[in-house]
Formats: sequence, C-alpha cells, structure tokens
Amino acid sequence: MASDRYNDLDQLGQNNGLPQSPDEAVLERVKNPCPEPYMVRLVAPEFTSICPVTGQPDFAHLVVDYCPKDWIVESKAFKLFLGSFRNHGDFHEACTTGIGRRLVKEIEPTWLRIGGYWYPRGGIPIDVFYQHGKAPEGVWIPDQGVPPYRGRG
Amino acid sequence: MASDRYNDLDQLGQNNGLPQSPDEAVLERVKNPCPEPYMVRLVAPEFTSICPVTGQPDFAHLVVDYCPKDWIVESKAFKLFLGSFRNHGDFHEACTTGIGRRLVKEIEPTWLRIGGYWYPRGGIPIDVFYQHGKAPEGVWIPDQGVPPYRGRG
Amino acid sequence: MASDRYNDLDQLGQNNGLPQSPDEAVLERVKNPCPEPYMVRLVAPEFTSICPVTGQPDFAHLVVDYCPKDWIVESKAFKLFLGSFRNHGDFHEACTTGIGRRLVKEIEPTWLRIGGYWYPRGGIPIDVFYQHGKAPEGVWIPDQGVPPYRGRG
Amino acid sequence: MASDRYNDLDQLGQNNGLPQSPDEAVLERVKNPCPEPYMVRLVAPEFTSICPVTGQPDFAHLVVDYCPKDWIVESKAFKLFLGSFRNHGDFHEACTTGIGRRLVKEIEPTWLRIGGYWYPRGGIPIDVFYQHGKAPEGVWIPDQGVPPYRGRG
Amino acid sequence: MASDRYNDLDQLGQNNGLPQSPDEAVLERVKNPCPEPYMVRLVAPEFTSICPVTGQPDFAHLVVDYCPKDWIVESKAFKLFLGSFRNHGDFHEACTTGIGRRLVKEIEPTWLRIGGYWYPRGGIPIDVFYQHGKAPEGVWIPDQGVPPYRGRG
Amino acid sequence: MASDRYNDLDQLGQNNGLPQSPDEAVLERVKNPCPEPYMVRLVAPEFTSICPVTGQPDFAHLVVDYCPKDWIVESKAFKLFLGSFRNHGDFHEACTTGIGRRLVKEIEPTWLRIGGYWYPRGGIPIDVFYQHGKAPEGVWIPDQGVPPYRGRG
Amino acid sequence: MASDRYNDLDQLGQNNGLPQSPDEAVLERVKNPCPEPYMVRLVAPEFTSICPVTGQPDFAHLVVDYCPKDWIVESKAFKLFLGSFRNHGDFHEACTTGIGRRLVKEIEPTWLRIGGYWYPRGGIPIDVFYQHGKAPEGVWIPDQGVPPYRGRG
Amino acid sequence: MASDRYNDLDQLGQNNGLPQSPDEAVLERVKNPCPEPYMVRLVAPEFTSICPVTGQPDFAHLVVDYCPKDWIVESKAFKLFLGSFRNHGDFHEACTTGIGRRLVKEIEPTWLRIGGYWYPRGGIPIDVFYQHGKAPEGVWIPDQGVPPYRGRG
Amino acid sequence: MASDRYNDLDQLGQNNGLPQSPDEAVLERVKNPCPEPYMVRLVAPEFTSICPVTGQPDFAHLVVDYCPKDWIVESKAFKLFLGSFRNHGDFHEACTTGIGRRLVKEIEPTWLRIGGYWYPRGGIPIDVFYQHGKAPEGVWIPDQGVPPYRGRG
Amino acid sequence: MASDRYNDLDQLGQNNGLPQSPDEAVLERVKNPCPEPYMVRLVAPEFTSICPVTGQPDFAHLVVDYCPKDWIVESKAFKLFLGSFRNHGDFHEACTTGIGRRLVKEIEPTWLRIGGYWYPRGGIPIDVFYQHGKAPEGVWIPDQGVPPYRGRG
Ligand SMILES: [Ca+2]
Ligand SMILES: [Ca+2]
Ligand SMILES: [Ca+2]
Ligand SMILES: [Ca+2]
Ligand SMILES: [Ca+2]
Ligand SMILES: [Ca+2]
Ligand SMILES: [Ca+2]
Ligand SMILES: [Ca+2]
Ligand SMILES: [Ca+2]
Ligand SMILES: [Ca+2]
Ligand SMILES: [Ca+2]
Ligand SMILES: [Ca+2]
Ligand SMILES: [Ca+2]
Ligand SMILES: [Ca+2]
Ligand SMILES: [Ca+2]
Ligand SMILES: [Ca+2]
Repeated sequence: MASDRYNDLDQLGQNNGLPQSPDEAVLERVKNPCPEPYMVRLVAPEFTSICPVTGQPDFAHLVVDYCPKDWIVESKAFKLFLGSFRNHGDFHEACTTGIGRRLVKEIEPTWLRIGGYWYPRGGIPIDVFYQHGKAPEGVWIPDQGVPPYRGRG
Repeated sequence: MASDRYNDLDQLGQNNGLPQSPDEAVLERVKNPCPEPYMVRLVAPEFTSICPVTGQPDFAHLVVDYCPKDWIVESKAFKLFLGSFRNHGDFHEACTTGIGRRLVKEIEPTWLRIGGYWYPRGGIPIDVFYQHGKAPEGVWIPDQGVPPYRGRG
Repeated sequence: MASDRYNDLDQLGQNNGLPQSPDEAVLERVKNPCPEPYMVRLVAPEFTSICPVTGQPDFAHLVVDYCPKDWIVESKAFKLFLGSFRNHGDFHEACTTGIGRRLVKEIEPTWLRIGGYWYPRGGIPIDVFYQHGKAPEGVWIPDQGVPPYRGRG
Repeated sequence: MASDRYNDLDQLGQNNGLPQSPDEAVLERVKNPCPEPYMVRLVAPEFTSICPVTGQPDFAHLVVDYCPKDWIVESKAFKLFLGSFRNHGDFHEACTTGIGRRLVKEIEPTWLRIGGYWYPRGGIPIDVFYQHGKAPEGVWIPDQGVPPYRGRG
Repeated sequence: MASDRYNDLDQLGQNNGLPQSPDEAVLERVKNPCPEPYMVRLVAPEFTSICPVTGQPDFAHLVVDYCPKDWIVESKAFKLFLGSFRNHGDFHEACTTGIGRRLVKEIEPTWLRIGGYWYPRGGIPIDVFYQHGKAPEGVWIPDQGVPPYRGRG
Repeated sequence: MASDRYNDLDQLGQNNGLPQSPDEAVLERVKNPCPEPYMVRLVAPEFTSICPVTGQPDFAHLVVDYCPKDWIVESKAFKLFLGSFRNHGDFHEACTTGIGRRLVKEIEPTWLRIGGYWYPRGGIPIDVFYQHGKAPEGVWIPDQGVPPYRGRG
Repeated sequence: MASDRYNDLDQLGQNNGLPQSPDEAVLERVKNPCPEPYMVRLVAPEFTSICPVTGQPDFAHLVVDYCPKDWIVESKAFKLFLGSFRNHGDFHEACTTGIGRRLVKEIEPTWLRIGGYWYPRGGIPIDVFYQHGKAPEGVWIPDQGVPPYRGRG
Repeated sequence: MASDRYNDLDQLGQNNGLPQSPDEAVLERVKNPCPEPYMVRLVAPEFTSICPVTGQPDFAHLVVDYCPKDWIVESKAFKLFLGSFRNHGDFHEACTTGIGRRLVKEIEPTWLRIGGYWYPRGGIPIDVFYQHGKAPEGVWIPDQGVPPYRGRG
Repeated sequence: MASDRYNDLDQLGQNNGLPQSPDEAVLERVKNPCPEPYMVRLVAPEFTSICPVTGQPDFAHLVVDYCPKDWIVESKAFKLFLGSFRNHGDFHEACTTGIGRRLVKEIEPTWLRIGGYWYPRGGIPIDVFYQHGKAPEGVWIPDQGVPPYRGRG
Repeated sequence: MASDRYNDLDQLGQNNGLPQSPDEAVLERVKNPCPEPYMVRLVAPEFTSICPVTGQPDFAHLVVDYCPKDWIVESKAFKLFLGSFRNHGDFHEACTTGIGRRLVKEIEPTWLRIGGYWYPRGGIPIDVFYQHGKAPEGVWIPDQGVPPYRGRG
C-alpha cells in the first residue's frame, strides 16, 4: 500500500537515538505529493533546551507552519531534530528563530513561520514569532490559536 | 413534504456498507437550492486511514468548506466516501489534499477548502490546509476554529 | 415608560400559539430607533425542522446578524417565525438560506447574514453561511464565534 | 502620590447614591494623560434596565471601546451613569445606541464603539453593535471577544 | 540505561502491522516496578470498530484505569490490541465490556475499569462504564473527567 | 459479522417516521451482552416538547444513565421515543420524570436516572433530576457533567 | 393539551409588572406531578438588589435546588419574586439566606439549598451557601458547578 | 434602607489607605444575619506579599470558606487586611496558614478553610490548603474549583 | 555553552531586590541574535501599582509585543522594572502607556505595543491598548487573546 | 524581613547547575511553619526523562500533594531534583512512583501522593497515580483537576 515516494526514508519506522546537537541532526524530506499550493502545520509541545547563562532547562511549545515547494519535512526527522536541542544552550529568541531558519534552508518552502511559546521564568513567559518568504496567493493560513499565559486563579 | 429535488438519491435512508476504496465510492450530489452565493461546512471527526510506511492506522478530524455552483454534496454519500479511506494507505499531506481535489472534481464548486487536523504521532501532530478556486465576492467564510493541539497538563 | 414606537405590536406580551408554517408566520417590525448605522444579532439555539427524505426531526443553532435601515425585527415575532418551521421539511441548505432571504424581504435591512449550525447526522454536521447586501461603511461586525463540532473525547 | 490631574473629581472615593435617570447622571472626565493615540476598554457585566412594553427588567453585558482625544471617562462616574438606567425603560437597540451616543457627546473621543450583549428573552438573545467616528491611523483595536450564547447542554 | 525488566518485549520499538482480530492480538506485559499499590490510566482517543447491523464504522474515545498486581500492560501492545477491532463488528456495550474483560484476564490486575465514550449515531451518543474487582485500600482513583456530549451551539 | 442477538430489531437500519405520541412509541430492547454489572449513558441534546399553558415549544438536553439487568435499550428506538414528545404538552418536571419512569417500566434496569437540562424561559432555566432503584454494589457511575447555565457575558 | 393541574395559575402567560418588594411578591405553586422523590434546579443569572450601606446596586448569580413534597414552584412566580429585590437593600449573606428561607416556608419542600454567587466589590466576591432539611434517601443531587471568580488574565 | 446591623462599620464607604502590616490591620465584623448554619466564600485574586529570602514580590489567588457562628467578616475590612501583606515577607506555607489562623481568631467561626494558589516561581507553583474546626452537620460546602496550573501550550 | 552575547548582564542569575521606583529601574538589553525581522511577546500577570486617589492597590495583567531592531530586552530586568511600580501611584491609562513609552525609549524597537488588562473596580474593569511605530513588512503579529472579563456565573 | 527558619538553605537564590542523576540530587527541607495539619501542592509541568527501550525523551506533567509533619520541601531543591531525571531512563510507572517514594523518604510527610500525566506515545498517554500514608483527620485535599487527554478536534 505504500507508494515508492517513501523509499528513501532512513528514520521512520526505525528505533533511533537522539542526535547529540542540532548540527548533527539530519532533516530528511519527502517529495511534495500535491501539485497545488497548500499549508502544513507541525506542533511540538515537547521542546526543551538549556539556558546559556544559568544552565537550567528551558521548555517551549512550538508551532511551525509552511507552504511546501518541492519537499515536505518527514515528521520523525523533524522530531529528532527538535530533540537535538535537549542539551543545547541559547536564549529563547535565538533558539526559535534558529529552528525557523534551519527549516527554511533544508526544506526550501515557499513560505514558513514558527511560533515559540516558552514556559514562564520569574513569572514572565516570552513568546517569539518568526516568518520567512511570502505565502503563495490564495493559500489558506489559519491562526495558530495558542492560548495566552494566565498566571493562576 | 419532500420536494422532488431529492428523488435521485440512492444512498440516503438506505443501509449501505462501506465502499472498499476511495475509487469505488460514489459522491452523489443534489441540485443547489439557493440562487445566491453562500457557503457550506462539513465536519468529519471520525476519519481514519492507514500509514503507508508502518501499516498503522492514522486518525484525523476533517473540516470541508465550499461555495456551491450547481450542486451541493449529499451528506450520506460524503460520509461513505470518507469511510472508504479506512483501509487506504497514504501520508497525511496526500490524503488531505486528495480528498479536497476529488470533491472539487465531483461537486464543481466555485471555491472549496479542506483542513485536516491529524492526531499526533511521536508527540507531533500534522495539520494540512488546502483550498481551490476563489470564493465569490461578498460570500461570508468564517474561521474553522479547530483548537490547537496542547499535549498534556 | 413605553414610547409609542411600540403601539402597533400585536404579538409581544401576548400568549400566542405557533404559526402552522413559515408562510403563515407574520414578521412584525419596529421603527429603527437609531439614526446612525449599527448591527443587531439574534441567536436562536432552539431551531427545529423536519428532514424531507426521512421525516426525522433536524435541529440547528441559528445566528442572524443585520444592519437595520428603516426597521428592526420585533423579537417575539422572530421567535414565532422560527417556530413555524417545526413541522416544515427541507434540507439544511434550503432552510438556512430560506430564512435569510425571507428576513431580507420583510425587514429590508442594508445588510444581513445568517449562520446555520446543524446538529450532526451520521456523525457529520453541516453548517450553512449566507449573506445579502453590503454593510454600510464603518459598521462594526464581530465574528459569530460558534465553536466547531468536536465529536467525543 | 496623586497628581493634580485628579483634583476635580467629585465622585471617586465618595459614597454616592444612584442618579434617578440617565439625564440626571453626570459623566465626569479626566485629562487624557497620554499624548499619543491609544484605546481604552470599559466592561460592565452588571447593566440592567426595564422593558418598555412589559415593565420586566432586562439585563445586559456591555463593552465600550474608545480612543481618547482630550479626555478620558472617570470610571466611577461611568458606573453611576450605567446605574441610572436601573428604572429606565426602552428596547435593547435604543438603550445600547443611546449609551454610545451619550458617551460620544460627553467625552468627545476620536472614535467609540459599544457592544450590548443582552440576556435572552423567549430563548433568543439580542446583541447590538454601534460605533462612531474613525479610529486614528495606527491605533490597535482588539476584538471584544464576548462568547456567543449557547442555550443548554 | 534500560533495565532488563524490558528484555522480553517483542513489539515496542518494532514496526508492527495491525493484528487481524482481537483474538490474534497479543497483550504483552511488563513486571510491575512498584511494590506498593497505585493506579495506571491509559487513554485511547483513536478507537474504531464496525456496527454489526449496518456495517458502518463506529468511533469511540476509551479510558482504562487499573491497579497492577504483578504486571503492567505494555503500551504498544495495548495500542495494537485496540487496533485489532478495526474490522470487528459488535454493539457499543459489547465492545467496551469485552475490552475490559480481556484486559482483566491478561493483566490480572487487582482492579480495573473502562469508560467507553462513543461518537453519536442518530444524534445520541452511548457511553459505557464497566469495572471489575476492588481497588486496594488507600489507592487514589481520580475521576476520568471526559466532558459530556453537547450537540451544537 | 453481526451476531443473532440483533435479529429482532424492527427499527434499526430502517427509514422510520416519528411516532405520533409517547404512548404510540415502541421502546425496543436488546439482550444485555455482558454478564457483569456496568452502566450505560444515553445523551439527547435534541429534545423538544410543548408548554401545556402557552402552546410554545420547550427544549431540553437530556442525559439518561442506567445499569442493565436483562436488557439494554436499542438506541434508534430510544431516539424515536424521544421524538414522539415533539407535539406533547406538559411541564418540565412532568416530562423529565415521565421519561425516566417509562424507561424503568420497559427496560427493567437495576437502576436508572435522568437529568433534564431545560433551556431558559423568562431568563430562568429549570433542571430536573430523577433516579429509581439502587445501583448494584461496585458499579461505576460518573457525574453527568453538564455545565450550568451562565446567562451572558 | 394542557392538564387542569395548571388552571389556578394567575401569572404564567400574563403581562405582569414587578412586585414592589419581596413581601408583596406572591410565590404561586403547582401540584407536584411525580409521586417519587426527585430534585429540581432553578438558575437565576439576573438577580440584583441594593447595598444597605452605600445604596449602590449589587448583582448575583443564584442557583436554587430542592426536592418537592406536595408542590413545585411555578417558574414565572419565582422570577417575579426575585425581581422584587430590585430596590430592596441588605447584605449578601442576608439576601441569600432570606430567599432560601422564604422558599422553604412557601413551597414546603423536603429539602432545599441556595447558592448565591455575588459579583465582586473591591475586587473580592462573596458567595453564600445555605441549605435546609434533609434530602430523601436515594435522591440524586448534582454539584451546582458554578465556576469560581478569576480576576483578569 | 440600611438596617442598624451595620451602624458600627468604620471602613465600608470610607476612603481608607492600606494598613502598614498584618498586625495593624483591623478585621471588623458584622452580626451574623441568619440563625441557621450556612457557608460564606471570599475570593481574593489580588493578593501579594514578599519572599523572605530574595525580597521579590510573590502573588497568590486566595479562597476563604467559613461557617459563621456569631459574626460574619465585613468584606472591605477583609480586603484591607489582605492588602496589609503587600510589604510583609514570609514563605507561601506561612502566609496562607497565617491568614487562616488570624481569621479563626477574629471571626470565631464554627469552621474555616483557606486555599492559597500561588503563582509559579522557577516553573513550579505551590498551593497551600488549610482548615480549622468542623463544619456543622448539614452544611453545604462546594469545591473551590480553582483550575490547576498548566504551563504553556 | 553560553555565548559572550550575554557577558554584560548584571541582573540575570543574581539575587536582586526591587528598585524603589520606575525611575530607579535599569532596563538592561541584549544584542538581537536574529538578522531578520520577527516579534517577541512578554506576558506579566503579576503587575500591581497604587491608585493615586484612594491609595488602594491596583492589579493588572500586562502583555507587551515588539519587533527588535538592535536590541532585545533582558527578561529579568523587565521583571524588576515592572516590580518598581509596586508603590507608584497613577491611573490605569497613565501606567499602561507610561510602561509602553519607557520601553520604546530604552529598547528602540521597530514597533511596540502594550495591552493592560486591569482588575475590576466597582464591578468595571478598564483595559488599555497602546502601540508605537510600524511593524516591518512581513512580520507576523498574533492576537494577544486575553479573555474578556465576565463577572460571575 | 527573612526569619532564621531559612538560614540553612544552600540552593535558593543561588545559580545552580542541574544534578547529574536523581541519586546526586539533594532534597533540602525547611521547618514546617504551621503547627496544625494542612496540605501543600507542587505542580511541575516541565518534567522530562528518557525512554529506557528507545532512548527517546519522554515528557510529563507532575502534581505532588502532601501533608507536612516536621518539614516542608524547599521548592528550588524540588525543581533541581526533578531536573536530575533529564538523562535518566525508565518507564512511566517506575519514574512516577520512584519520585513519590523518594519524597516520602526525604520529607517524611504524614501523607503524600503524586499524579504523573504523561504525553502520548503512539497516540496513547499513560497517567500514573501513587499515594503513601494516611492524611490526618480533618485535612482538606482538593482534586488535582488535570484535564484528560482529548486527541484532536
Ligand atoms: Ca522570564
Ligand atoms: Ca489571574
Ligand atoms: Ca450529514
Ligand atoms: Ca508525527
Ligand atoms: Ca475527539
Ligand atoms: Ca428576545
Ligand atoms: Ca446546545
Ligand atoms: Ca445511538
Ligand atoms: Ca450523529
Ligand atoms: Ca428566556
Ligand atoms: Ca466585596
Ligand atoms: Ca516555586
Ligand atoms: Ca502543556
Ligand atoms: Ca473601575
Ligand atoms: Ca454572567
Ligand atoms: Ca504510549
């Protein structure tokens, strides 16, 4: 039942360990199966990296939206790429925009954006919003709809 | 009380089994009862297909919006068409855009879009957003409003 | 305390039975009390009609928005008009657009739209969105905000 | 710590009874403390007036948005003004647009809008949306976000 | 880093197809790692079976709670077991209680319960609640908290 | 795939009109497939009857919970039974307890309860809660969890 | 279609003004239509009274639960009784328990409770919970489920 | 309209500054207006104190429940008492139980409890739950229902 | 693992007390790590200041959005700056726009906006919305999505 | 302002790195400041460990409730203890009960429970509920209230 579009995937269906750093992670891609423009959304509520100043872990909920040109990202490779930030240290603004820019380089989409919704530190969360390129005319791009931080009560 | 607009429907009110594949499914249609442009939304929270690589079932919540020209889709036929993907294998991006394109071919709407909100695999859900054509001037098209995936807690 | 703007109303404050059909319902109207353009919303979560093919009852949540010109609809008359569909049979698309078009004819608003959010049949709800005319420049028109159907879980 | 901007306020910090009618209410105002354009929102979930035909109380949730020019409204005066409708009778459309127009006259804002979200009568709520003037270029005006009426269940 | 408690697992980390029927599914188990009583909850929002009368697919959201004695269920085996109902036909009441009783037989827990929250048919969902055995004194058993069906609006 | 437990059902899979009154409705039942005690929940968000004093339609969201002894109710028969109240007039308290008591008589459950959550009239909703019998020891009975009426805002 | 149980009602279906004070309000009652014990809930999100110290209006959301003995309260009379507090002044604790005790005296229920959920003053809302009598064995009494006050954000 | 029950209140309706510390705050009380047992809830979403180790401000959402014996707490005095913690330093556990114990001493209730829901520090909120005495037989005590902390996403 | 971008920070990782006033607070900044335009959001649900007329504390939930040019704000410095308003007195409109304008001066962003969502006083909350500059073409700016005030029920 | 109760804390207000494993983590404790029994809740939405079979990261939302005897846990030490699981591999059931049992050993509470709400793997989340000891008579223990997993839609 599987088409040969998927023959080259080395990670899906395998039992892979985590890459040691973002640089070691391989972002495998699959041929885009649809000749018309459309949008793909990937949600990663399990992202974690390290604060470069204190060494403490940081946590974020990430949402990536993109319009494929020739390729779509393979979702297990995407998951392993995100996992490679587990022991990588940088500020919220640098991690979020860095992930967005790496995806732009590897997947070469027509358009891409990433929202990074970080857990609060000192009672104050930081959210980072980055986008690159221009969505093709007529593509439908819904809001990411992540609810804002509320504190308690 | 029923108008003769509905005389040709072979599936509504019948006890039909599922078609064996999307190709076997028949997408019956009904004459559009309204001379002015408007929009119709169909929501299918019970969609399931098969992963083409691992053979595991995939699940999605689908929302279809369209502006009818001469026809509206009959809802039971629509349901049986979706049910025909039960043992069909393809990636999320291919299934979602494929359903959208088949509807465009059969119903010949002025405009159509489909949102595919897939259950997470490996902790990461994929959403796919496709649209075709251009909505007539002055038609009202509300947001699909599906809440984003949150993980736990 | 009541102004004479309301002297002609035959149904408000009376104990009226339901009209037997939409054709028998009288859509009373009141002089528009405001000289500037604005918008009125009516929500009817208690709408029911009959399926023209199976004879089973259908249920919908309806939302009507309009900008009055010379008249506003009297709300009890509106309620009785909707009640007159109780034993009337037609498809979701025909009922929703039919109510919208009847209101346009009787109230002669500058602009009107209706959202029909129907209960699921066969697991699949149909929503219908119709609008007529063009809202006056500078009028404020909020989203109808009806949450989408979710299934279970 | 208080600036002399507030010296003229006769109602804030005092124990005032309710004005007997909207005409008797005094809408005190304070000098606008910010030289750049911005927007102010006031929410009043405790509004009540009288139905002019039946004499029964009506209830509404009101939201007022405006861009100040020279003045901002003092919030206790605003509260007393709304309280003065307690025994005043008029239709939902007349009350809502009347409050909006009175505020325009007294506060002379660049732009103002009011949303009146009325409790249901006969199962059907009426919402009224009014605005006046034109917001200055570059001002940020968020949605009022009041959730729609749902009925039961 | 893996302890030898997990050496016997044949399915976790493998690329398994779905078992053809519940009878063919193997419910692998792992030694209970905790000497004190406690409770485990498994949530399966992706369950589907076949209606035995009409041949149409049914969908459910399942929640299983149990107190382990000697064994805990391995979660991938549990997932494949549920997947084996994909082409199995029976009523909601029979499927739900059948899954509960099979788990009791294979895992031999001190206590187990299953909630089956089925998608509506004909506008009416059926929920089925089954439990077996008696929870050990002092075990903590939270509510399953699945929100009830609401229809539309 | 269908077992012969279901051979006697006259309504499921047929195209039935509505019974004219509750007395004419037939509450078909199916043999209970499970030898151990458990609980079944039926939710009906589409119930409507008539006010015996004013002739206006009333609407309710109904939830029925029961523990079967020898029988379970067939869900399409249950739906038609509820539909038979469409032109039946009685107070909220009488309709709700009447449905509960009729089910007790026909299905002979060990225990049954019904919650009737009625739409507001005059701004005030009435909810009615009835139960009969005693649930068998050890049966699990979750809360009905219908959210309370909130008015607006 | 109306039974003679309702012949004595003087207020339902009439166009009544508000009683001037709680003492003037008449709490009409109807014969209890059900011979078995059960519970009735009335929700009043439109309650308002006056603060006895400052003369400012207070607002509350009230929920009354009771088990009828010989009588049920007629809902329009209940609404007019609550409306009679419009110009009555007392503290939150006194109003809430006073309404509960008056209902106990007039309706003579087996058991009754009232929850008064008051709007905040000075940022702090007061809720008052009163009950009287003892619910009959085996009656089902769900939680009132009013969400707690949250402030902003 | 005010009864003489309220003659002794020195703070309500006055323009009071904040007490400098909890010891300086005066907890005025009012005679309990109801001869039967009942429960009162006070919600304070605006509480703030100082961390005794770092000097940083802490924030909490507090909920107090109690059954009055001879006295009820006056709500403005309660607000000023809470405000007196603004520059007071202690741990979450000490502040919450200290407020509860002070109220017990001043108001002499039959029973009292306090829930302290503190804003997260270092990503981890602390909630503190204290109660004193025993509620009178037959008093109704609803859950405090504060939603748990969720992090982001 | 920390880059030298962060070497100059004097407050992060230190145990700082609160600045005594906004004028004393130091708004440290970090070099913007991303060469492309993007947006940063800071949420502060723990803001408190003093009412300039009554001396009572005020509370707000603040959300700041900006597009960095050369600098991003360091989040601990931002937190200490907000904490410096603890004993500062001014109206809601002045505090909110004042914070926005100070950030514009110190961080020199391309564009900045602040939403101040204040806790209710007298039952009526005030929200203040300010923005400055013009967001670069192609930057993505999501809604702040703070839910509106609802009162009770 | 800090009492000497806190003099011995080595981690609070310091800039600590993460302990390398749970065994290396030090669980500092503070003298219990309250002589009466009460309950403390700690919420950790940022927990992560490693799957012992696949090496992939797992994520959980943890909630710990306990009644202190002589000690309370210091919250920064608790955070560092949880952080020490970052590179520790074990099953969900073993991690959750292991954290609970370690806390029992170090803090010696009268009673303790832990709820582990794990992110889904293969579409199925596992929740683990453990408790130890017996809460003192009269202590108030609210529900943990974590919403159940829903899938999509
Ligand atoms: Ca931070
Ligand atoms: Ca809050
Ligand atoms: Ca349908
Ligand atoms: Ca995936
Ligand atoms: Ca679902
Ligand atoms: Ca109305
Ligand atoms: Ca509904
Ligand atoms: Ca059914
Ligand atoms: Ca259905
Ligand atoms: Ca009503
Ligand atoms: Ca108060
Ligand atoms: Ca903390
Ligand atoms: Ca989360
Ligand atoms: Ca105010
Ligand atoms: Ca409300
Ligand atoms: Ca799993």
